[in-house]
Amino acid sequence: MAVSAIIPAAGSGRRMGGGTAKQFLPLRGEPVLVRTVRLFSECPLVDEIVVVAGDVESTAELIGHFPKVAYVIQGGKERQDSVWAGLQKVHSRPRIICVHDAVRPLLTMEMLEGVLHAAAEHQAQVLAVPVKDTIKMAKPDGIVTQTPDRSTVFAVQTPQVFWVEPMAQAFRQAIADGVVGTDCASLLERMGVPVHIYPGSNENIKLTTPEDFLVAEAILERRERG
Amino acid sequence: MAVSAIIPAAGSGRRMGGGTAKQFLPLRGEPVLVRTVRLFSECPLVDEIVVVAGDVESTAELIGHFPKVAYVIQGGKERQDSVWAGLQKVHSRPRIICVHDAVRPLLTMEMLEGVLHAAAEHQAQVLAVPVKDTIKMAKPDGIVTQTPDRSTVFAVQTPQVFWVEPMAQAFRQAIADGVVGTDCASLLERMGVPVHIYPGSNENIKLTTPEDFLVAEAILERRERG
Repeated sequence: MAVSAIIPAAGSGRRMGGGTAKQFLPLRGEPVLVRTVRLFSECPLVDEIVVVAGDVESTAELIGHFPKVAYVIQGGKERQDSVWAGLQKVHSRPRIICVHDAVRPLLTMEMLEGVLHAAAEHQAQVLAVPVKDTIKMAKPDGIVTQTPDRSTVFAVQTPQVFWVEPMAQAFRQAIADGVVGTDCASLLERMGVPVHIYPGSNENIKLTTPEDFLVAEAILERRERG
Repeated sequence: MAVSAIIPAAGSGRRMGGGTAKQFLPLRGEPVLVRTVRLFSECPLVDEIVVVAGDVESTAELIGHFPKVAYVIQGGKERQDSVWAGLQKVHSRPRIICVHDAVRPLLTMEMLEGVLHAAAEHQAQVLAVPVKDTIKMAKPDGIVTQTPDRSTVFAVQTPQVFWVEPMAQAFRQAIADGVVGTDCASLLERMGVPVHIYPGSNENIKLTTPEDFLVAEAILERRERG
């Protein structure tokens, strides 16, 4: 089964407090997006990569040379719009779609290959880790309604991996219904597609704040030391 | 209303991979526990501090000189046992109990005073922040059951602040029922006591891993620069 990767990289970097979007910032001397795209480019299971950008020109300049990058296209208003735009570009079916945040450059090859192999069996999968914090659900008035058993609560990461047909169907239905999901998988969940948790890693962080970059550099340094 | 702080500091530091428990490690030159206890000691609303330790002798040596530290006592098997042990020591009623992790030294005075003032109105409060990740609930077989609306999901921190009577009653009932809660507040929730979310901060982190220390140092550095 062929795999197309969709990498939404249209973030504006507002939370970093600077002008440069996070995916363009250097991480140990190399832009975040380059690290992310290289991993997918080097993965033997991945056939093509569609990068969905805010700034198409700068993005193409940065990662257009990777041989598997088939398209660098303009993103939409919401992340979901960008993923949907990417989905229009993927190659002929049957096909597995692997959506991964541009700003999660610490994903490992082992984990990527693992979740792609598991896609032979499951039509929808998300990487996720058990939450470290105690989670509480609360009403808008700020009163706690529930403290769910921690063993049932997961923090979701990417990749999220889907068979193309149920994914496309779920996105079309979401557009028809005017629904914006918290993540891609939630759109399949509302169609009744079983979504499987694939074990992620606490190192597979999303780079959002300056502190996240500090942590990422420390993790990379540790990996380089072996 | 008088306030007693209970600071569970009995952690063994297993997750740090080293022999020294996290509360004893230096953070910008000063042990974590010293920073935490100093904040409570300097808070005009706090009357007394009970520190519940794993290693009573080392702990007392480190923070016993703060004038408001009334007791340094031996902790129990679970965090809940330690808090309960601390609760036996607090001064006469009526009283507010403020439980705070030893390894959350970045709590600010403003936030501490804010939640203590709000305790005049609410008998149970927890500091919490909206979750940044998408959270999913899953069954033991790893299939997602729910992606709760993010606006209803909070990651809990400390302080957790309670009126002494409902707190003591909830702990006694938990012991009688053999229940170990994920946090103190969950014990009051199961008694039907309304628990209020008090807005925490993403800077009020719990120091668990070496990376957490990096982040904490960066935050402190930024605060010192103003």
